[in-house]
Formats: sequence, C-alpha cells, structure tokens
Amino acid sequence: MDITPFKSIAGNYKTIFFDAFGVLKNHRGLIPGIENTFRFLEENGIDYFIITNDASRGPRELAQDYQERGLKSITKNKIVSSGMLAREYLQYKVKSGTVAYLGTARSAHYIETLGLQTISIADLNLENAEDISALVFLDDEGFDWANDINKTINLLRAVNIPTIVCNTDKSYPVSRSEVAIAIGGLANMVEDIVGKRFIRFGKPDAQMFIFAYEHSIAEGGIADKDKILMVGDTLSTDIIGGNKFGLDTVLVLTGNTLAKHAEMRINSRGIIPTYVCESAVIE
Amino acid sequence: MDITPFKSIAGNYKTIFFDAFGVLKNHRGLIPGIENTFRFLEENGIDYFIITNDASRGPRELAQDYQERGLKSITKNKIVSSGMLAREYLQYKVKSGTVAYLGTARSAHYIETLGLQTISIADLNLENAEDISALVFLDDEGFDWANDINKTINLLRAVNIPTIVCNTDKSYPVSRSEVAIAIGGLANMVEDIVGKRFIRFGKPDAQMFIFAYEHSIAEGGIADKDKILMVGDTLSTDIIGGNKFGLDTVLVLTGNTLAKHAEMRINSRGIIPTYVCESAVIE
Amino acid sequence: MDITPFKSIAGNYKTIFFDAFGVLKNHRGLIPGIENTFRFLEENGIDYFIITNDASRGPRELAQDYQERGLKSITKNKIVSSGMLAREYLQYKVKSGTVAYLGTARSAHYIETLGLQTISIADLNLENAEDISALVFLDDEGFDWANDINKTINLLRAVNIPTIVCNTDKSYPVSRSEVAIAIGGLANMVEDIVGKRFIRFGKPDAQMFIFAYEHSIAEGGIADKDKILMVGDTLSTDIIGGNKFGLDTVLVLTGNTLAKHAEMRINSRGIIPTYVCESAVIE
Amino acid sequence: MDITPFKSIAGNYKTIFFDAFGVLKNHRGLIPGIENTFRFLEENGIDYFIITNDASRGPRELAQDYQERGLKSITKNKIVSSGMLAREYLQYKVKSGTVAYLGTARSAHYIETLGLQTISIADLNLENAEDISALVFLDDEGFDWANDINKTINLLRAVNIPTIVCNTDKSYPVSRSEVAIAIGGLANMVEDIVGKRFIRFGKPDAQMFIFAYEHSIAEGGIADKDKILMVGDTLSTDIIGGNKFGLDTVLVLTGNTLAKHAEMRINSRGIIPTYVCESAVIE
Repeated sequence: MDITPFKSIAGNYKTIFFDAFGVLKNHRGLIPGIENTFRFLEENGIDYFIITNDASRGPRELAQDYQERGLKSITKNKIVSSGMLAREYLQYKVKSGTVAYLGTARSAHYIETLGLQTISIADLNLENAEDISALVFLDDEGFDWANDINKTINLLRAVNIPTIVCNTDKSYPVSRSEVAIAIGGLANMVEDIVGKRFIRFGKPDAQMFIFAYEHSIAEGGIADKDKILMVGDTLSTDIIGGNKFGLDTVLVLTGNTLAKHAEMRINSRGIIPTYVCESAVIE
Repeated sequence: MDITPFKSIAGNYKTIFFDAFGVLKNHRGLIPGIENTFRFLEENGIDYFIITNDASRGPRELAQDYQERGLKSITKNKIVSSGMLAREYLQYKVKSGTVAYLGTARSAHYIETLGLQTISIADLNLENAEDISALVFLDDEGFDWANDINKTINLLRAVNIPTIVCNTDKSYPVSRSEVAIAIGGLANMVEDIVGKRFIRFGKPDAQMFIFAYEHSIAEGGIADKDKILMVGDTLSTDIIGGNKFGLDTVLVLTGNTLAKHAEMRINSRGIIPTYVCESAVIE
Repeated sequence: MDITPFKSIAGNYKTIFFDAFGVLKNHRGLIPGIENTFRFLEENGIDYFIITNDASRGPRELAQDYQERGLKSITKNKIVSSGMLAREYLQYKVKSGTVAYLGTARSAHYIETLGLQTISIADLNLENAEDISALVFLDDEGFDWANDINKTINLLRAVNIPTIVCNTDKSYPVSRSEVAIAIGGLANMVEDIVGKRFIRFGKPDAQMFIFAYEHSIAEGGIADKDKILMVGDTLSTDIIGGNKFGLDTVLVLTGNTLAKHAEMRINSRGIIPTYVCESAVIE
Repeated sequence: MDITPFKSIAGNYKTIFFDAFGVLKNHRGLIPGIENTFRFLEENGIDYFIITNDASRGPRELAQDYQERGLKSITKNKIVSSGMLAREYLQYKVKSGTVAYLGTARSAHYIETLGLQTISIADLNLENAEDISALVFLDDEGFDWANDINKTINLLRAVNIPTIVCNTDKSYPVSRSEVAIAIGGLANMVEDIVGKRFIRFGKPDAQMFIFAYEHSIAEGGIADKDKILMVGDTLSTDIIGGNKFGLDTVLVLTGNTLAKHAEMRINSRGIIPTYVCESAVIE
C-alpha cells in the first residue's frame, strides 16, 4: 500500500470536500497542523467544503466551533451537514402538524427555523399523537433512552408518519479508545423492531455529495468532477460515497481507519480509495 | 383458514409444550379459563411444560408466579426457560473470573447459584475489566440504558469474551396496545455495532426444544415426537421452532398473532402451523 | 385509503417522472390507454421523463421500444436509466483496463461507447485477470449462471476491483403470475458470499432522482420540486425514493402493488405516497 | 495466540467430534497423516464422530468415501450429516404428497428411502404443483441454475409449503484458491426474494450437535460434555456451534481459517476456540 503525501495531491484539484471527524478534528480538538492545510488551499485558490454526518447543530453553530478553535475561514457556507438535507426534506414534504424528535433542544432549533412546530419525544403524550406529522432522529442526547425510545416505538405503532434519520453513523469516538452509540445506531434498532422503513440522510448516500456539489457550484465552484477530491477517514461512508459520486478519494489514517488495518480493510471490503495519506495536514 | 377447537386436538397428544406469554397469560394476568385447560390435562394424563424466552428470573420464581395466580400444578420442574440454557452454558464454558451482566440483580441471582461471581455493568469500572470472563444480556431493566449500553460496547471493544443473550425476543407487550424493547432487541444493536457474534438462547432455536424434550423424558414423559404438541402465539419463534424439531404445532390467536392477520402471515412467511385455535382454553 | 383519479392530479405539476414497468407497460406490452396520458401531458405543456432500473440496453434502444409500440413522443432524451448512471461512474472512475461484465453483449454495448474495452465473464480466463479494472452486473441473461457466477466469485477473490450493480431490483415479472430473478438479486448473493461492498445504481437511490432532475432542468424543465411528481408502482423504490428527494408521489395499482394489498403495505412499511391512483391512464 | 499440538489435547477427552472438510480432507483428498490420528484414537479408546454439513449423499455413501481412501474404521454410524436431520424432519412432518428438490438424483435417493415420493425441480411442471408437499435444497449440482432456480421461486409463490435447506454453508472450496457457491448460498438468495422463512439444518445450529451427542450416547459414548471435544476449521460454524453446545473446541488451520488470519478473526468476531492447533494430525 503506497502512502502519498497529501501536499502532492491537493494541488491537482480545484475543490476539496473534507469529512470533519477523524480528518480535521478528533476527540481532543483540531488535528495539529490542520490550519496549514487551509492556508495552503487559500494560497492556491482551491475551494473546500466540510461534509459531515452531524445533525446535532445547524451549520452556523458547526462553523462557529471551527472559528473558535482558530480556523477563521470556515464559515457557515463551507458546511454541508446531513441535518441540512433533513431540513430540506421537511421543508418540501412536511407542511403542517408537529414534528416529534429525539435529540437536544439545540438540534431541534435548526428545524424550527423552517416555521415547523416541534416536540421532544420526552414531552410527548402518546394519547395526543394525532397531530404528529413526522418523526426525526437528531441526536443521541437530550432524552432518557429507556423511556423515550420505548415511547418512540409505540408512537410509530400508533400513527403512520414519515421517519427521518439525520445521521447514518452507528457510533462515534468519545476518547482515544472509547466510542458512544450515535443516533443512527439507535434508529437502526427502532426500525428493525417496528418493521417500517426510515428515510436516512448522510454519507455514503449520494444525496449528501450532490448537495455539496451543487452548493459548491452555486458558490462559483468547478463542475468538473475530475477536479474535485473527497478526503475522509472511513471507507464505508466517505470513500465509497465519494467513489460512487465519481470523485477521486483520499483515505487518511488519523481517524477510524488505523494505519495497521488500512490495507487489510481495503482488500477485504473492496472499497478502494484513489490515494492513502497519513493525514490531511500539509506541513 | 380452519379454526379448530383446542379441546379436540389436545387429547391426541401425550405431552404438550406451551409458550407462556400470549398463550397462558397476557399483560393483565392469566388468560381467563386457562385453569380449565390444566384440569383437563391432569384428568387425561397429559404431561405439559412451559417453554419461555424469559431470563428475568429463575424457574423457581417463574413457577411461583403461576402458583400465586392460582395454577398450583405449575411447579419449578414444569418450566423450561432460555435462562436455564444460558446457565448451563456458563456452567460448562465459564469456570472462572467474573460474569458481567445487563439486567436486574434478581436476574443475575440465578447465575450466581452456579458459584460464579457476577457484576452488573452498572457497577463495572472499565479500567478493571481484565477479570471479566463473559458478558450476559439478561433483562432490559436494572440499568441505565444510555450509560450502561455504551459501557457494554466499550467493554466488548477492550476484551475478547464470549457474550450470551438469554432472550431472543426483540420486544414484549406491556399493555393492550403498547410494547417495550426486550433485552434481545438491545443485544442486536450492540452486536451490530461491535461486529462480534453473540451466543443466543431461546426459541426458535432447536436447543430450547431439545432441552424441554430431554427434561420431559427425564420426568417420565414420552419420547415419540408424534405424540408431543407445541402451542404458541408467535409464528417466528414457537411455530417454526416446534415444526423444525418435528412436533405438531398449534397457533393460538390470544397473543402476538391477531385473528385478522393470521392467514396472511402464514401465507406470506411460509411458516405453517399444524392447527390454528382461538385459544388454548378448554371450556 | 382514498383512490384519486390520476387526471385530477397530473394537471397540478409541471414535470412528471414515470417508472416504466408496472406504470407504462407490463409483460403484455403498453398499459391500455396510456397513450392518452402522454397526449394529455403534451396538450397541457407538462414535461415528463421515464426513470427506470433497466441496464439491459442503452437509452436509445429503450426509447425505440416505446416508439415501436406507438408512443412516438418518447425519445432517447426522455429516458433516465440506472445504466446511464453506471456508465457515468465508469467514465469518471475507470479510465483504463478491461471492464468485465455479467449480461448480454447488447447490455455491454452501451458501456463500450465510452471507449472502454469490455469482456463477458463467460469469455474471461481467470488466469489472465490482472488487466480487469472493474466488474459490472448488467443483465440476468447472456451467460451460464452456474459456471459464470462461480467464476465471478473467484474473480472477486483474486483481484480487488470496484464492482458496479446497474439494477437494484431483485426480481421482475415475466407473466401475469411469474417472476424471474433480476441481476440485482444475483448481485446480492455474490456480495454476501465474497463479503465485499458493491456500488449500486437505481431507485430508490437519490442519485437516480437527481440525475433525472438535472436532466430535466438541462432540457428546460422546472427546478421547483413542489411542481414535480413521481409516479410508480413500487413502494420500496419509486415511492420512498421520490419522497426522500422531496417530490410528491403517486402509487399506481397496475404493477407490483395490488389494490387489495396497498393499504396494508403502506401502513406496515411506513412508506406513504402523496396519492394512490388506479393507474396512470387518463381517459 | 498459542498453538497447541493436537496430540497433547486429544488424550484428555473421551469423545471427539470432527468436521470433515478442512479437518480430515481437502480438495486433494485426505489430509496427509490423518490416518495416524484415527489409529491414536482407537489405541486410546477415544470415540469419534464426523459432523458434516453435507447433504449431497446419505451417510453410507459418505462413509464409503473415507473407506475407499483408506480410513477403514469410518463406518456409516460414525457419520452425522445435515442431510440426516433433514430426513428426520421429513419423516415427522411430511407424511404425504411429493417432495420437490434441487440437487442430484443421488442426493434425493436418501430421502426416498423414507418411502416419500420425490421430484427434481428440473422435472416439475408448475401447472401441476398442487401435490407438492415440501421443497428441499439438497445440492448445487443436478439442475440448470437459471431455469430451475427461477422455477423454484415461482413454485414458492404459488403454493405455501415448508422449505428445508440441508446445508447452511454458502460456498465450498474446489481447489487451492477457488470456491463454488453451495446450495446454502442459493437458498439464501431464494429466501430473500420470496420473503418466506426456510428451515435450515447444519452447523452451527445446535440441533446438529445434539443429534451427534445423542447418536454418540446411543452407541455407548460418554454423556459428560466436559469430556467431548469439537474439532473444526471454521469459526462461524464448527467453533461457535461447539461452544454454544457446551463443548471444548479446537480450531485447526488446515482449512477455511489460515494461520495468518486466525488471531485477527478470533478477536474481531469474538468467537473463541478453547485451543488452536496446526492440524488434527497426530504424528
């Protein structure tokens, strides 16, 4: 397996899509040196976007987090999140009623900006569920798992409503060695138990890449897919999703895929990045 | 679909295996009239056993519950539970160390009677996990879901130990219209996230029926499978399991399978009971 | 469940996407009267596209088939097929080597127009497989199943190449009561056995709808999703895919979903069309 | 990972269960030296049985194959095959009608010894399917895949009959580097397409081990599970099945699990053999 320096690759593209967690940051904060990468991109006129399976906050708050850590150039319009796709879905398909959600009040706020009424499953009375017009899985925090996941199952048995999952990840890292179940993992369990079919937003789904692609073009970015690069740490979301959309792809070894496992996983899963790099850092 | 009176069937067998929930009892207590069935069985010299995917208590406590409700003839040795199989597994395969569990102290008590040391995941410190020799999913109560399921996942990432699931059900009824997630449903989610393979005990697994069959023979029951009947309310556990073991099977309509859905489900799933009866009650 | 006449719905949209099989045609040919629908659309200035999981031929041949049956207005640029997406993928991601395929020579022809070299698995010698740069599942005909599916499995064990499935359907109708396994069904079996992850094109995948949407806009169609309607006969592809992309959807009862099953399936799967119509025929 | 000589283990048990393929033989014939193992067992009064997911022939023919290769002591009553379990099922549950099968005439012969009438799917006319009382997946040879698998699907759509799969393996080795799809792999595809639930016989299912265990006891073998050893080359069938049944287990490295992958697979799947040995050969 050849390891290529990211610097030797980045200059060949006009637009770069970055995954967030495992590429730009980890549980401790920004990946050390990643600020140089953004300086290099700006100096070389390379556009970039951050594509993230994160629906815990809106794009403004997600951008603010990077800015507070020193990446001043990452503004709201550089962010493409699965939550944005879910919000767009609700805008087109759910025009009335109340949207029930599993997550924090902060995660629901971004939906409320549509003018839709929302209610946390924690506050829902199942006897008054007729007005509920959709259910959204937003975040793994903000509710009591035992009580409110059971309540969710009974809501879905009582009313037939569209159910949206805003994060396809099953788990996420919380420290060097530990993970936590993501809302996508909880949604899989609920879907299996109720036997219904949920609508999912997030990588590797093509809709995520197209959203970013159109977003990029709308901001003056290049339309030629040969000139767009996807950089991620996870074969089953970032790399297969980028490949399927027709982009060149870089697997970095700073997140989910450790250097010692990369070659074995690429071969056993048949998901083949165009390049493998130590990291997305440009010294 | 022909509905046959249970009375016209029961007399043709020497031993009858009953599922518990949905057949003998429901969320309100015993199915009204079921005591007549047991009187009929005793008057006609028909042996019987209760085969249940319940590991929340030992067989003594499970029997006691029937006795308190008036079914005095249901003693400890009439009960065959998935918990008994799990206990047998631990007896043969886990001879030292501490067994971690998800469930109530009551559910763990039955394992402790083996002489094995146990610890609730709730009380476990992941930094001192080297002594843990197995993990058992016992009951959906007795722990904090968010905290302790995440802790379970990190335990399984840190140590390579056999993991036992004592109840294959994904959910169970808690009222006329509501269900709750069973420990088997939680175990499925954890197994999917950690990517390991768990050991499951419970119907429809053949081991459950063989355990009952041997139990029955040891108590003087008949060995001829043509003379043993399995009665259950669930096609995917009771009926397919009984069929596969070579028994005649009765689907009753007092539990998971409603009268209006029975024919459609039998045809769409291809799981075919020998008979369909309104209930297991003999007037 | 309300049944709405299609005529009362169609006039409210500017663009209509139609599924092909079960909506416009069935095993006997065109659905009787469907030519009136296209006359209505043209008279009312409503644009339309046919979105089909069919990679057995290129769009030119697919259009020709409608024309020969009398639908003269259905030209090549009205067709959006999963084969077109697969071809686009190969164009961006596979620039050299030989593409191996399962299918007829006719199905491969459309790929060859890219300038790529192709070889049927039937003609492939596994000893000379180093030059194979991708594998494509195109059609269920044109090869010997036993011999060539086994050869496909051994090819994927020997070389690590991207594998593309051009049709997500598992089966397709061949007469009033019989079906045949589609190439998507065979691909699922191979993927499960080799343990690799394939790239799939076809409804319900969002990429299919976006391809049609962009195609439509490029031809002067409307961009407002509220004015685009998706019409299909299958909940799990046409309807959930259209819903997820933000379109209004019509389930017709002339194909996979029979009138007697529609309500039960909508409720049990939780996939909810905006409307249900007897057919897409406008008298 | 410690590698233990098989000789130092074997002597501690009173009965040993062996998997066949990958343990006693491979695509070239008997594993060289395996005859010494059987000499050792006989000299030390250790009983043994061969437990195999093979329904292509009856136990008499399976035994004959070993005898022709020089293992004279392997007689019919040393063989426990998944085909024997399937035959027992048919004996109890299918008392009339004709049993349709996919496989060779030789594989069906063993079922015919029950007195049941059989018909190959290849010879079946779907218009006269009312008399078919069960379907059995026996062997991957003896029929035309494209034609007869499609016919099987349409049979299962037309009549509601129990369907039995006599081999849970998805593939089997045919040379040093190549495999072929087993009848279990074909059955998985058919089950997924028709949406029905099949009855499967074969390891890791407990029924297989219990059948062997009772067989062994009936021949005078020991009942104490602590004194029975299971030897296999596949974690997901032999080892997890043996573990679950309460036996000590040996993983050998002469078949499906190569030495270089063994430790990684044991850790990633969480299926833990009691011992790992180079082979079952005793020098």
